[in-house]
Amino acid sequence: MAAEDEMKSRVLVIGGTGHIGKHIVAASVRLGHSTAVLIRDSALADPAKAQLLKKFVDSGAALLKGDLFDHKNLVKAIKWADVVISAVGPRQITEQTRIIAAMKVAGNVKRFLPSEFGSDVDRVHTVDPMASLYAVKANLRRLIEAEGIPHTYVCCNGFAETYLPSIGDVTAIGAGPPESKITVLGDGNAKAVFVVEEDIAAYTTRAVDDARTLNKILYMRPPANVVSHNELISMWEKKAGRILQRVHIPEEDVLKWIKAEAVFPLDILLSIALSIFVRGDQTNFNVDPDQMHEAKNGLSTDVPGLVTSP
Amino acid sequence: MAAEDEMKSRVLVIGGTGHIGKHIVAASVRLGHSTAVLIRDSALADPAKAQLLKKFVDSGAALLKGDLFDHKNLVKAIKWADVVISAVGPRQITEQTRIIAAMKVAGNVKRFLPSEFGSDVDRVHTVDPMASLYAVKANLRRLIEAEGIPHTYVCCNGFAETYLPSIGDVTAIGAGPPESKITVLGDGNAKAVFVVEEDIAAYTTRAVDDARTLNKILYMRPPANVVSHNELISMWEKKAGRILQRVHIPEEDVLKWIKAEAVFPLDILLSIALSIFVRGDQTNFNVDPDQMHEAKNGLSTDVPGLVTSP
Repeated sequence: MAAEDEMKSRVLVIGGTGHIGKHIVAASVRLGHSTAVLIRDSALADPAKAQLLKKFVDSGAALLKGDLFDHKNLVKAIKWADVVISAVGPRQITEQTRIIAAMKVAGNVKRFLPSEFGSDVDRVHTVDPMASLYAVKANLRRLIEAEGIPHTYVCCNGFAETYLPSIGDVTAIGAGPPESKITVLGDGNAKAVFVVEEDIAAYTTRAVDDARTLNKILYMRPPANVVSHNELISMWEKKAGRILQRVHIPEEDVLKWIKAEAVFPLDILLSIALSIFVRGDQTNFNVDPDQMHEAKNGLSTDVPGLVTSP
Repeated sequence: MAAEDEMKSRVLVIGGTGHIGKHIVAASVRLGHSTAVLIRDSALADPAKAQLLKKFVDSGAALLKGDLFDHKNLVKAIKWADVVISAVGPRQITEQTRIIAAMKVAGNVKRFLPSEFGSDVDRVHTVDPMASLYAVKANLRRLIEAEGIPHTYVCCNGFAETYLPSIGDVTAIGAGPPESKITVLGDGNAKAVFVVEEDIAAYTTRAVDDARTLNKILYMRPPANVVSHNELISMWEKKAGRILQRVHIPEEDVLKWIKAEAVFPLDILLSIALSIFVRGDQTNFNVDPDQMHEAKNGLSTDVPGLVTSP
C-alpha cells in the first residue's frame, strides 16, 4: 500500500474551496494522493469556509497559504506537487496565466489540469455572454500548449447539482422541480450529459496519473448520463408519478431572449443552455482518439462511489 | 418648441442596445434630446439586433459607429454630445475608463452618467461574487471624481423586468410566477425598490439637464415602488386571487448557499439578492441632500408614461 501510494502523484488543488474543488480535494485524498490545497488569507478568515477547511485538514489534506497573486508562495506550493489541478471559478479563469508562469519557474510539474469542468470550449456554438467566457478558456488552452505544459482538459459536461434539481429548467435553476410546467429550450431532443459532482472529482483525480489522458481532452460520458432534456423530464416524471407540461421555446426566441431581453446574469445561463440543450454541443462531434479520451465506464472500474444515473 | 429643444443637451448613449440602454435611447428621443447611439460593428452585423437599430433610426436617433476600444471614433462621438450616458453591461464596467479617457481628450462633456442602474454601490453590504463587481463600480466613481468629471450616479434600484415576473423569487428568475411555493430570502421584511424599465429611462433622461442631480447620486424611490418581499407577494396574491406558500431561507443559510454550494451564475443572483432582500441595502440609509437626490415623485410631473406601481 505504501509503495503503491508513493507512485501516486502529489496533487495541489487551486480553487479547492469551490463547488467542484472541494470534491476534488476529497477524491484526491480518498484515492491515496498526497494532497495540498492552496488557501487564500480571505478564505482562512471566512467563518462560512471554516467547516470545509477543518474537513480538509481532518481528512489528511494539507492547507498551503497562498494566492494566485503571490508569485513566490505559488511557486513554492507548485514545487511541492507533481500535478496541479485548478478548479478556480469563472472570474479567475484568466488569472490562471499566473499558475502557468509559476509552473514555468517551478519546472517540476508533470501535469496541469486547468479549470475547465464544462463543455469542450473548442467545440461550443453559442453567443455572448458565455461565448466570450468560453473563448477565454480556449485561449488558456492555447497558452498551455504553446508553453509545452503537459496537461489534461477535463470536460465533465453538466454539473448534476446545477441542472438536475430543476429537471434541466434553466429558468428556475435555484428552485426545486417545477410544479406543473417546465420550460424546454428548443425541441428538447439534443443529447446532453449530466454528471454528479463526486463522480466528476473521481474521474478528474483518476486522470492525473493515467497515460491515456495525457495531453488530451477527457470527456465524461457514461452512457447512462447522456440524455436529452425530454428524456430527463420523462425519467423524472416516471419517478415522481406525475406529468409536467413542456413549454418549448424555439431557438430563435432563445436567441432573442439572450440578446435583447434577458438581464445579467440570466443571459449567462441562457447562453450556456443554448449550447447544451438546443445545439447539443456536449455530444454533437466525433471523438478523435489522438486528441481525446472518452470516459464511458469510468477511468477505472474501482472508482469508489460512482453514481452514473442522473 | 424648437427653442426649448435647443436648450436640451445632446445625448450620446453608449451601450444603447442593452436591457436598459434601449429604453434610454427611446426616452431621450421622446423627451426631445438630439440623441446618438454608439454602435459596434458586431452589433451592426447581428440580425438579432437589426430590428432594434431600425427602431432607433426610425425614431430619429443617430447611429454612430464606434467602440470603447476605438479611441479616435469614441472621442469624435463624445465631441458631438453634451451628455454621455453609459448603459454598458456588467462585463464592460471596467472598460468605462476608456470613456473617461476619451472625455478628457474631448473636453466638452457637461455630464457623464456611468453605467450604474442598480443599488448604491457605496452603500451595499454583500459578499462575492457581486461584492467585487460592486467594488469595480465604486472604483469607477472614485476615478470620475478624481478626474473632476461632472456626473450623476443613477441608482434605479431593482429592474421590474428582472424581479417582478417571478414575484421576487430569485431562484426562479427566468420563470413566471410560482405555482404554489415561493422562496423568500431572510424574513422578507427588508424594503426593496422595483422600477419599471421605461420609468428608469425617463428618470435618467430627465436627470441629464437637472441641476439638482449634478454631481450627486440619484435614487429612484417613488413610494409606491418601495416594498418588502412579503408586501410584493401579498400584492400579487391579492391580484391573482391565490396564496403562495412562503419558504423562508435564513440569512446564514443564504450565505452558506452562496459561498459553498451555488454554482455560477446562481451565486451572482444570490449575492445581489442578499443585499436587496435580506439586508435592505436599497433603503437602509439616510439621504444626505448634499450628496444625494431622491426622486420620489418623478424628476418632473410631466414624465410621460410613468408607471409607479410594480
